[in-house]
Amino acid sequence: MTSAYLLDPAAAGRFSADKATKSDLVRGERLFLGLNCFEPGQSQPVHAHRGADKFYLILSGKARMIVGAERFEAGPGQLVWAPADVPHGVESALERTVMMIGMAPPP
Amino acid sequence: MTSAYLLDPAAAGRFSADKATKSDLVRGERLFLGLNCFEPGQSQPVHAHRGADKFYLILSGKARMIVGAERFEAGPGQLVWAPADVPHGVESALERTVMMIGMAPPP
Repeated sequence: MTSAYLLDPAAAGRFSADKATKSDLVRGERLFLGLNCFEPGQSQPVHAHRGADKFYLILSGKARMIVGAERFEAGPGQLVWAPADVPHGVESALERTVMMIGMAPPP
Repeated sequence: MTSAYLLDPAAAGRFSADKATKSDLVRGERLFLGLNCFEPGQSQPVHAHRGADKFYLILSGKARMIVGAERFEAGPGQLVWAPADVPHGVESALERTVMMIGMAPPP
């Protein structure tokens, strides 16, 4: 990192054998960015954020995701969009998986 | 794309020989995601968004970026954070470069 404004999300990922982990990257007034890290088989229960738009960007690995009535696999470089109030989650990581997430407004 | 909620940003990049391009990925009530695509040598003038947090995630290529008083090179997988009201821009793309950007609230 050469600057407070330059971050390397992939290098910040931390895993736990117990469950999926969450960590902060940056927290602004209007926008939060963080990481979700999954070992194979780990999940994130379906949930919704009232009034907050969210995305996941898969940095590495592969996971079966749920958004609304849709269920699909997402892999590296793919973006998953979960608009405000739409239920979403990670049914299962199929590999060790790192996702960058963003949420506005911050949680 | 297997779902309205699953996008492949890298596949959506469009370049112009004339100048850097911008395109929309998704536009929510609270969060906008888009792409900025640069041919080598193309730039984005330093500017600021009043009250809106912004990030760039470099998907491919390399560019010399400016945020506040900082100037640095950013490459694939690196995240550049430009908090609300802080001037930022792309001084020059050093290669053909694709950046995903997010802004909250949307422009």
